[in-house]
Amino acid sequence: MGWIEQSLMARQGVAGGKEGARHSITIEDQGQFHYVYGPYVDPVITVAPGAVVTVETHDAFEGKITSETDKPTEILTFPFLNPQTGPIAVEGAEKGDCLAVYIRSIKPRGPQPVGTTCLLPEFGGLVGTGQTALLNAPLPEKVKKLKVDENGVYWSDRITLPYEPFIGTIGTSPEIEAISSLQPDYYGGNMDLPDVGPGSIIYLPVNTRGALLYLGDCHAVQGDGELCGVALEMPATVEIQIDLIKGHTIGWPRLETADFVMTIGSARPMEDAARIAYRELVRWVATELGVGEDEAYLLLTMCGKVRVGNMVDPKYTLGASIAKKYLG
Amino acid sequence: MGWIEQSLMARQGVAGGKEGARHSITIEDQGQFHYVYGPYVDPVITVAPGAVVTVETHDAFEGKITSETDKPTEILTFPFLNPQTGPIAVEGAEKGDCLAVYIRSIKPRGPQPVGTTCLLPEFGGLVGTGQTALLNAPLPEKVKKLKVDENGVYWSDRITLPYEPFIGTIGTSPEIEAISSLQPDYYGGNMDLPDVGPGSIIYLPVNTRGALLYLGDCHAVQGDGELCGVALEMPATVEIQIDLIKGHTIGWPRLETADFVMTIGSARPMEDAARIAYRELVRWVATELGVGEDEAYLLLTMCGKVRVGNMVDPKYTLGASIAKKYLG
Amino acid sequence: MGWIEQSLMARQGVAGGKEGARHSITIEDQGQFHYVYGPYVDPVITVAPGAVVTVETHDAFEGKITSETDKPTEILTFPFLNPQTGPIAVEGAEKGDCLAVYIRSIKPRGPQPVGTTCLLPEFGGLVGTGQTALLNAPLPEKVKKLKVDENGVYWSDRITLPYEPFIGTIGTSPEIEAISSLQPDYYGGNMDLPDVGPGSIIYLPVNTRGALLYLGDCHAVQGDGELCGVALEMPATVEIQIDLIKGHTIGWPRLETADFVMTIGSARPMEDAARIAYRELVRWVATELGVGEDEAYLLLTMCGKVRVGNMVDPKYTLGASIAKKYLG
Amino acid sequence: MGWIEQSLMARQGVAGGKEGARHSITIEDQGQFHYVYGPYVDPVITVAPGAVVTVETHDAFEGKITSETDKPTEILTFPFLNPQTGPIAVEGAEKGDCLAVYIRSIKPRGPQPVGTTCLLPEFGGLVGTGQTALLNAPLPEKVKKLKVDENGVYWSDRITLPYEPFIGTIGTSPEIEAISSLQPDYYGGNMDLPDVGPGSIIYLPVNTRGALLYLGDCHAVQGDGELCGVALEMPATVEIQIDLIKGHTIGWPRLETADFVMTIGSARPMEDAARIAYRELVRWVATELGVGEDEAYLLLTMCGKVRVGNMVDPKYTLGASIAKKYLG
Repeated sequence: MGWIEQSLMARQGVAGGKEGARHSITIEDQGQFHYVYGPYVDPVITVAPGAVVTVETHDAFEGKITSETDKPTEILTFPFLNPQTGPIAVEGAEKGDCLAVYIRSIKPRGPQPVGTTCLLPEFGGLVGTGQTALLNAPLPEKVKKLKVDENGVYWSDRITLPYEPFIGTIGTSPEIEAISSLQPDYYGGNMDLPDVGPGSIIYLPVNTRGALLYLGDCHAVQGDGELCGVALEMPATVEIQIDLIKGHTIGWPRLETADFVMTIGSARPMEDAARIAYRELVRWVATELGVGEDEAYLLLTMCGKVRVGNMVDPKYTLGASIAKKYLG
Repeated sequence: MGWIEQSLMARQGVAGGKEGARHSITIEDQGQFHYVYGPYVDPVITVAPGAVVTVETHDAFEGKITSETDKPTEILTFPFLNPQTGPIAVEGAEKGDCLAVYIRSIKPRGPQPVGTTCLLPEFGGLVGTGQTALLNAPLPEKVKKLKVDENGVYWSDRITLPYEPFIGTIGTSPEIEAISSLQPDYYGGNMDLPDVGPGSIIYLPVNTRGALLYLGDCHAVQGDGELCGVALEMPATVEIQIDLIKGHTIGWPRLETADFVMTIGSARPMEDAARIAYRELVRWVATELGVGEDEAYLLLTMCGKVRVGNMVDPKYTLGASIAKKYLG
Repeated sequence: MGWIEQSLMARQGVAGGKEGARHSITIEDQGQFHYVYGPYVDPVITVAPGAVVTVETHDAFEGKITSETDKPTEILTFPFLNPQTGPIAVEGAEKGDCLAVYIRSIKPRGPQPVGTTCLLPEFGGLVGTGQTALLNAPLPEKVKKLKVDENGVYWSDRITLPYEPFIGTIGTSPEIEAISSLQPDYYGGNMDLPDVGPGSIIYLPVNTRGALLYLGDCHAVQGDGELCGVALEMPATVEIQIDLIKGHTIGWPRLETADFVMTIGSARPMEDAARIAYRELVRWVATELGVGEDEAYLLLTMCGKVRVGNMVDPKYTLGASIAKKYLG
Repeated sequence: MGWIEQSLMARQGVAGGKEGARHSITIEDQGQFHYVYGPYVDPVITVAPGAVVTVETHDAFEGKITSETDKPTEILTFPFLNPQTGPIAVEGAEKGDCLAVYIRSIKPRGPQPVGTTCLLPEFGGLVGTGQTALLNAPLPEKVKKLKVDENGVYWSDRITLPYEPFIGTIGTSPEIEAISSLQPDYYGGNMDLPDVGPGSIIYLPVNTRGALLYLGDCHAVQGDGELCGVALEMPATVEIQIDLIKGHTIGWPRLETADFVMTIGSARPMEDAARIAYRELVRWVATELGVGEDEAYLLLTMCGKVRVGNMVDPKYTLGASIAKKYLG
């Protein structure tokens, strides 16, 4: 029996972690993509807990960067970036519940070279930006297109990178806000966290009726921090299984794999993202072990792990985790 | 002849800085307040440039905290905080234009004690918060109600504070986002900057057709930083005069008084708010004086001033300014 | 009777705020300047509380930048920057005491143009630096020399800036550390806070026997934040009066003028400097008014002021202040 | 042939990565520990490149916390914390060189329970501190003593943590500063980075004649970030092999293992530590691969890894790394 049967999703979900009806959302079904996470649009489909949904996502540039000689600044129009598929409404979901999304697979979709990365002026972790606003001249734009398949990412003759796909942007709608899909926050969004890949379950707070799940921005591979601001972006076909945990209120996204549980914080400065993630984890561990927060705090000092998702988005994203073996 | 006639508003505004038609928005006209800055609602009125509008605003708690024995956490419901009057649509305003709002007067409105301040758990500049997420126990809640009139704010028998009112939250709608009225950003919003008071003109970027001006959250008096997160909140009657500068694109709010011009940045960490404000000012000064950015940078090193608006909101707000006399 | 007689220095100082013996330290007396604040050198003089000392300071570049065509990077040698006069040992000073330094006058010293400012690569508030380490190309170096007298700073034909001198760097020795004079911290140092000028008293924690007061880095004028990293640097003749408050332990520098009292914090990110300054002030005000910290916190929310000293040094410096009239 | 023979140390070191003379420093040899990293003391020994030195270190509390009922605040005296063994002078080392320290083994030393962790008031990643200065009440003090051997760390009946020892504090002397051993910076110091363990080589900039290597503060195990501010502290016996690379100037510490190379940055806010580490790595990778910085920047966006050392010290420490296989 696999770990999924022992997961929080399976133990507490309305569908008990079991597969329900199958659905799909193609690019054509979607029609108009969305550039904000909000409640002001109609769902593209409504599903019951347990639903397995095959979702086609576009790349973060909506496929507009087609060649290494393209100039992104001439092609892209802010704020119409990072197009999202959805929202998917989930029956029975209400504010205060928790949505569980088990990521079953992520496959590259479309003609080769399917992967795109680039340097954009005033965007990225090692340049002045709109927020870290400086007088230095920006770096020149640059586009790189890479062949990708499920065996690897072909950087150069010498270097093949692993195919380690994940969903860069996934989350639920805020209650009354509609926030750019470029931003991560308490509801998920543009977290750019490599752990959000096949074989993991992401748990998201439900803030409004139906939860309204959006996703997009798949990456074929990405280093910690998504250093230049753009990973290896690709259009993808994602298979997810959705479950719903009633009355399970979480403040920030959480993640579960076979081996560990993780809490995810997004904020600036970066230490605040770390504080959010670790405070959530302290409280989770204290509950799981039946000990005080001080004891959980000391234990995580010994064995907590931190993953830097992005250090480039409007908020930075970090995940804090603990191996399940310590939660016995 | 006063400085208004020489202001950017008068020199470049569609209405030439002159008064046009008079309008008013009472609490009853408003009906439902708004808790986000966004384009997904209908304007409460539409006005032409030059319009003088008398606007009734509610306090940041929508008047729900009526006594010093109230428990804010039992009364307030997140995210329905900081109610905004508006939006006011402005004829002819389009993305890329600049809205000029001359603040003519701010008067306290309602029964005494009209002013409210309080300590809210996990909110404020000197406590752990949702973002600076800590394990320390929060401070106890506390409410303080103060009598206010146009001569002063009556803190205690011994201490009378000046009546120095300003608009805590004012801004235009983002293009496609709808963002909590608790947040300040490039479009204005919850800046909590004491300079946004009677006798000043605030310039705001227009991001969407009609500009969609919101305002609320007037403060009778506030120190730099709005230290505990809540100033002296009061319902108010505000008189503003609106003008429109076509094709004048600004990235962040600006402010003009008889004596100085200011640029306003909002970000975390605080140095990024300062960087935004000062970079905008460097560029403005360079243009005004017809010198290079390096020369403007050096000049502001000698005579730039910084005002801390808030150090408590989701983004911190700082204004950077230079005396007009140096712009000759 | 002036405010000095009512100052903390006069009320609690060993010398009662009264002038004692006169001393002087010329450049020749000093001989070797110091580039760290530390206890590992001998004092240049030892004085009793009450001492009035005339101190010659060098400019932050030790006079090596003599012309607008100089290349600072070819002339300056890190870490031998920001030369300090001193240390001055104070008789009877011990760890846990407080040193009071009343600044009586600051006069420019040396041949005209006496004032120097410049752009240094990878240093300043609006460029990538060694800490905010970026890949952008640095701005070109640039030197500007300005004539200065006690009537003004002569920027250009059109612009005369006020002569508003202050001591950029002043502080006591740490107990066992020796820290670069480029850095501000709990013991003072390179705070670059314009309030540290004639007519103010700065209070500094004593960390080691004799206190070991260093000073240097006088500025003829400076805007808030010392934006490009270099104010108008000048060699100066400073007259200070030193007093000692026994058993008065402070965690961070404080400042008193005729009108206000201020606490000074230095840290990164900038909000931490603000938190330090305001927490110190909350506690000071609570003690002065005999109220709880929560009441002082609320009062400062209404009337606290913040001054940004530097936003360029290894730690940023902010001062938080309250008008004395509120302290009764 | 092992990776050591291919390491930078072996390829460029004066001793060619080969073992030289054997030395030892016992606690008795050391006598007085040091609490600053600086040039103002005599070396305890002087060694030639290649030297293998067995060093006894004390725990961060100098062994003063002996029982779980101890009150650290009554026992510890700031700034006499984190005692360091050394300094070790290295023959021929001069400013601009690079010291290579290969960590051969770390063994717990002393009576059981040898490991100590604790909660200290106003210190740690999830509480208000002296820098993130807040009004919240501190958490209660708490001490935990744990049995440790080379097979594990015995947390509870249920939980055994791995024995993953490393040197919490190691570095060279600054040129003229003497900085608290509680702080990490460009010369190393209190980095609290778990990668600095057996089987790795740490490279440190030489800032002064003889390099003056200090070390101490060994940890038996630690999670990412050293969350509460105190890892599992233990007295240890460390065996290191020292080499010297002449004329190899590095700005920040670097680390090499069999599998990856890492650059280490320390700063606040945390994103600045990440920027430092990644900028250093971009430049290193660009040099190794013979490509431009832009290409190295893009490659690290795909495959860079980040390790959070500490999020509690006066500066936060992060390491950025790349697998050696990509450097071919």
